[in-house]
Amino acid sequence: MQSGRFITVEGGEGVGKTTNLDFIEASLRAQGRDVVRTREPGGTPLAESVRELLLAPRDEQVSDLTELLLVFAARAQHLEQVIKPALAAEKWVLCDRFTDATYAYQGAGRGMDMTAIATLEQLVQQTLRPDLTLLLDVPVEIGMARASARSAPDRFESEQLQFFEAVRKLYLQRAEAEPDRFAVIDASPELPVVQQQIQDVLQRFGASV
Amino acid sequence: MQSGRFITVEGGEGVGKTTNLDFIEASLRAQGRDVVRTREPGGTPLAESVRELLLAPRDEQVSDLTELLLVFAARAQHLEQVIKPALAAEKWVLCDRFTDATYAYQGAGRGMDMTAIATLEQLVQQTLRPDLTLLLDVPVEIGMARASARSAPDRFESEQLQFFEAVRKLYLQRAEAEPDRFAVIDASPELPVVQQQIQDVLQRFGASV
Repeated sequence: MQSGRFITVEGGEGVGKTTNLDFIEASLRAQGRDVVRTREPGGTPLAESVRELLLAPRDEQVSDLTELLLVFAARAQHLEQVIKPALAAEKWVLCDRFTDATYAYQGAGRGMDMTAIATLEQLVQQTLRPDLTLLLDVPVEIGMARASARSAPDRFESEQLQFFEAVRKLYLQRAEAEPDRFAVIDASPELPVVQQQIQDVLQRFGASV
Repeated sequence: MQSGRFITVEGGEGVGKTTNLDFIEASLRAQGRDVVRTREPGGTPLAESVRELLLAPRDEQVSDLTELLLVFAARAQHLEQVIKPALAAEKWVLCDRFTDATYAYQGAGRGMDMTAIATLEQLVQQTLRPDLTLLLDVPVEIGMARASARSAPDRFESEQLQFFEAVRKLYLQRAEAEPDRFAVIDASPELPVVQQQIQDVLQRFGASV
């Protein structure tokens, strides 16, 4: 059976992820694709409950390994209940963040053990990886200025500049290491310029399928 | 620095675990031990929240790997926040269930991948294992009759007889494989007879420390 395609969108704070996800979804539908749009951590009622546990401010210090295990618990549930069934039904899955974000935020940003992340990725995903990952990239100062204008900071967003620099660097390193899977979108310019880049990437990807 | 001791109590349904935990705690205190009593899954506010996610009845099917990752997320938090600090402070930790229960319930009972359990045990515990595990053992029919007289069944307790036979068998196999760590207590007779066995085990263990 022909399988669907698994597209993920990654990026730091203030890169315009939500707006551009809307645009990507609309573009894929205009190509005639049957799109399932979802997000991580989350995507099922149980996985969303785990997301709430992760994001809630709490007095108790959350150990690194606890956070990684919760992230991958939500991911395992999302894969089994949503992503794999959709791909098997030839749908195109459009996911707001996936395992690249774990490497970027928990690994590079918060300094968690990359080997533990790789162990959990192997355990939970086996060979499953995204077919296409759009990395929305802006310099950290611009992204943080955009994000802080938008909403109250949550536990992750209240981290420091150094954190977001490490996140961005790791994302760009992963994109460089896997150029066939990643498309880096310069998200600094005005929206129409950004979306023209996205449109070009989606047309090339759609033509290759 | 001299470390404390890590004692776990295991067993199926209706073996008298709560009553005998009370007795074990009192016996250890009578030996002059500084006891921290706790339970799994749980033992910290976050880990108890994960326990609630695990035990709540839900329409959504919970994937095996999701359940295992949640169990070990709670365990990682419990180890870092409660168990390891207590042991480092020379306290004796008395824990209602630990990783043997994961092998017994999720592995043998529910047929989850034992290799995945071992991978997570290694990731989360590294070399940490209980110093003493008391396995309270009764034939399944007796245990189920006792348990059903006591309370409404939760998601785990409503499983079938075959499930509990598999749980008991795996517990006994683990006890046979690690005779130095395990003490098997015949929990079928009247309580004073059971507690005399427990008292003997705790006195031998206390004398060996």
